[in-house]
Amino acid sequence: MDENDALKISRLVALKVKEAILSVPAEKRGQFFARGKSGVTKLIDKVAEDAALEVLMKEKLRVLSEECGFVGEGDIFVALDPLDGTFNAVRGIPFYSVSLCFSDSEKLKDAFFGYVFNLANGDEYYANENAFKNGQRIISSSEEDFGKMNAIIYYPTKVLPFKRIRIYGSAALETCLVADGSFNCFVDLRGMLRIFDVAAGIYIAERAGAVALDENGNGLGNKKFDLSERLNVVLANSRICRRLLELVL
Amino acid sequence: MDENDALKISRLVALKVKEAILSVPAEKRGQFFARGKSGVTKLIDKVAEDAALEVLMKEKLRVLSEECGFVGEGDIFVALDPLDGTFNAVRGIPFYSVSLCFSDSEKLKDAFFGYVFNLANGDEYYANENAFKNGQRIISSSEEDFGKMNAIIYYPTKVLPFKRIRIYGSAALETCLVADGSFNCFVDLRGMLRIFDVAAGIYIAERAGAVALDENGNGLGNKKFDLSERLNVVLANSRICRRLLELVL
Repeated sequence: MDENDALKISRLVALKVKEAILSVPAEKRGQFFARGKSGVTKLIDKVAEDAALEVLMKEKLRVLSEECGFVGEGDIFVALDPLDGTFNAVRGIPFYSVSLCFSDSEKLKDAFFGYVFNLANGDEYYANENAFKNGQRIISSSEEDFGKMNAIIYYPTKVLPFKRIRIYGSAALETCLVADGSFNCFVDLRGMLRIFDVAAGIYIAERAGAVALDENGNGLGNKKFDLSERLNVVLANSRICRRLLELVL
Repeated sequence: MDENDALKISRLVALKVKEAILSVPAEKRGQFFARGKSGVTKLIDKVAEDAALEVLMKEKLRVLSEECGFVGEGDIFVALDPLDGTFNAVRGIPFYSVSLCFSDSEKLKDAFFGYVFNLANGDEYYANENAFKNGQRIISSSEEDFGKMNAIIYYPTKVLPFKRIRIYGSAALETCLVADGSFNCFVDLRGMLRIFDVAAGIYIAERAGAVALDENGNGLGNKKFDLSERLNVVLANSRICRRLLELVL
């Protein structure tokens, strides 16, 4: 399987997840379904995961997903988030996504393809060697002046020097907003992110020129596709990423 | 003019502004146009305002707008924000709006109609005596437990007890998210809001059952349609609004 196969599979997953979500009446989107591997599952999460896995289980893939852990057999590992931004999706706020990261091992450093799709408006981000938004090559920002930076931060706990702070509620999409230069950084040091939340977006952002560090200033390459691991992420251009970590810690 | 006339006019404004924005190629949306009454104007702001005023100037209205101050003659005052969330609009993030607040005087307490339209996905909020989203009656939340609250705050500067914090970048739409119960509060104490940013959304949220206070705990009824005035706003249900103000100050 190469990145072209991964793109085809990802697009089919996005289409099927979108159709599945649209099939859920608005008033039922917030209903609970059951308790999953990662906490309480809403009906809409379950519907999205079922749709994604129906596509992925036809391939030789070992898929890590929020609700069911690892499923399938194969040499290629996939970190799947069938619906990132459930809170927005339930309320009709148009910022929620499906994301997939394909890797040759269970480690992020062996990833070779990342895909994030905004289910509300159809924006598509992916990266193979390079990164793209809606088919156009994207590169991340080179801004080094904190005072000119647009920042996404979960959550600010002191006065910060940035020009603008936003929190949209889908880490997969928000890391892509760093990839395409719309934002200068993404920070989440709450110890709550899971690998499937950010694997695809971080892969895309790094292919667009950004760098992701953990709370100790180390790269995320050794992070494993694993439901139990929680991540801290500072994502920005390489010249400011360490200074940014010091600033927000 | 009654609230039915105001609704018709507002819908025509929304339609014309949407058409005008779609006519601007994506790569030109971020271009600067000129320096206006409230700072630098982007081309997309100018295009939106022209489209809105073309509709409004056919009516007997006195319109306060960001780029040009007061224009027109009439007994009815309108606070217009032709494009709230320019940053999002320029980047294709689907959360930006047009908003109009109609009042019998230049004070917010004499408002009789508020209208907010998400230009990206077509969600429509308005209030006459009651408040509506896409034609359905809405009411704001009655949550009193900070730990269960979803909060919109510009910007957190300390650890806060809320369940979830979001910052989407259009105060007009965000106050409507309080109106429909998607969020439990909206807070902006930076002293940066202008009346046209929040007049319509606050009117809608109050008609949905919420209460808006300034930084001193006073209602906003005496706030004037005036470009120079800057507002602080805490919007939530009446039972927690004062406690919320103490918490975030």
